[in-house]
Amino acid sequence: MTIEEYLVEKATMIENALEQALPGVSEEPSAVHEAMRYSCLGGGKRLRAILAMAACRAVGGQEKDALGFALALEMIHAYSLVHDDLPAMDDDDYRRGKLTSHKVYGEGMAVLVGDALLTQAMEQMAKLPELYAITLPTAFRLLLAVTKASGTKGMIGGQVLDLQYAGQDVDKQVLETIHRKKTGALFQVALTGGAMIGGAKNDELAALIRYAENFGLAFQITDDILDVIGDAETLGKATGADQKQHKATYPGLYGLEESQAMAARCVEESRKSLKYLSGDTWALDQLALFVQNRDR
Amino acid sequence: MTIEEYLVEKATMIENALEQALPGVSEEPSAVHEAMRYSCLGGGKRLRAILAMAACRAVGGQEKDALGFALALEMIHAYSLVHDDLPAMDDDDYRRGKLTSHKVYGEGMAVLVGDALLTQAMEQMAKLPELYAITLPTAFRLLLAVTKASGTKGMIGGQVLDLQYAGQDVDKQVLETIHRKKTGALFQVALTGGAMIGGAKNDELAALIRYAENFGLAFQITDDILDVIGDAETLGKATGADQKQHKATYPGLYGLEESQAMAARCVEESRKSLKYLSGDTWALDQLALFVQNRDR
Repeated sequence: MTIEEYLVEKATMIENALEQALPGVSEEPSAVHEAMRYSCLGGGKRLRAILAMAACRAVGGQEKDALGFALALEMIHAYSLVHDDLPAMDDDDYRRGKLTSHKVYGEGMAVLVGDALLTQAMEQMAKLPELYAITLPTAFRLLLAVTKASGTKGMIGGQVLDLQYAGQDVDKQVLETIHRKKTGALFQVALTGGAMIGGAKNDELAALIRYAENFGLAFQITDDILDVIGDAETLGKATGADQKQHKATYPGLYGLEESQAMAARCVEESRKSLKYLSGDTWALDQLALFVQNRDR
Repeated sequence: MTIEEYLVEKATMIENALEQALPGVSEEPSAVHEAMRYSCLGGGKRLRAILAMAACRAVGGQEKDALGFALALEMIHAYSLVHDDLPAMDDDDYRRGKLTSHKVYGEGMAVLVGDALLTQAMEQMAKLPELYAITLPTAFRLLLAVTKASGTKGMIGGQVLDLQYAGQDVDKQVLETIHRKKTGALFQVALTGGAMIGGAKNDELAALIRYAENFGLAFQITDDILDVIGDAETLGKATGADQKQHKATYPGLYGLEESQAMAARCVEESRKSLKYLSGDTWALDQLALFVQNRDR
């Protein structure tokens, strides 16, 4: 199996499971359920969910054991995008090739849709013991890790910095801090959380944190590169947005060539940390390479 | 002790505990922590927290055992107000006598502040076993109950309906549905959650659900009445807002006198349900009377 086939297979499986886990449009109030499904289904690489499942396997667990947790991560990711796209934030009209939530349902509803997806993610966390056979102590470790990673010390903190520095010149250190929090924290908890479910030992968790840091940085650098050289149709969103919004980017601060070299070094570092894991690391290894070479 | 003295004592205690539980302004990113504290501290009746603690006592538990859970409820309530006040929602400039979050920190930040308070509430839920000696099974029951009560079948669902019916004529049934979800669901989980911590039996939980339904309705009716006849300074917010926004209210649909009679009947019903509880119900009894007679 190639990594592309693997990604398609897993994304399809996660999509189907999300279909089931989200409230249906036949349930009242249907308007918000429809809008939640609009923003959470039908697209996305499902990287966070796949990382969680791959990490579970990489420490000797079974991928499917991390599925319930993986769905919660995708809901959190989706909520953050809905709020991030709002006019008061990044003011984006398109996401994954579709109109953003506030363009379709209005701003007030988009605020509520984000709130609802975050709340649904936490309900999903609450269901892990009963529906996904996660032990209570592990489920609580996961809940604490997820809330920390998505809170002000993690993802929200990154968005706050992003907002504060919008339109300003930022140095390399600030840029890295923003990304480490804004996207890196959720990647990291996907990996460590999936590994906890798989019964990881402490040195395995430490190795996955190193993997996560390098993977996250490589992901962000290539994200910035794609905004410069990518194809809008393949990406499903407008390119050149960073420059238009005067956002600090890796190509902007380091140049395109050095950015590509940085991404390559990060990918190598992340791959190296996999040797400390006791399970099947094929997917994590291939995912690191994929992130460097992706076109979307 | 009078109920007024009780309320002041408990609100002070809850305020101090919230001070400790929220991230400090010395922690980075300080801007969002300052804004979270601005909206979550320094005001409010702390009714949800007090209901949780009083319900714990009313089934034979100790009030302080429900404190950690009570703080999470106040964070959820605070987040919902921050988002509800946004220009895309109710567009309110004042809350509890202070400028609303988006008036002070801007709209983008207010979206993030609400997200952060909700996430902090869930982190608080995750800390209940370790910091507040709640058993893991009870903590999970609480988490599931809280996420359901604050999600699309509860609080958020009520806000969605509120948004959908804004500016429209609504009938009595729709009005009651909106309020039952928008404010009633969180009152109910405060009471049943506090009672779970106190070791409530099933018939006690059922009695508290009846108490909650009547208490919530009485609360909303008096809220609407205060918007008509209340004093803006005492309330800490502008009166007449409902009429200005063409919102359906109990006085609008039933008239002032019948609304007052309805509130009184609800209070009587809620007090009656207390006889099924095994603990000290003084506070819950007095709280029901207080809600009817409050001036803020």
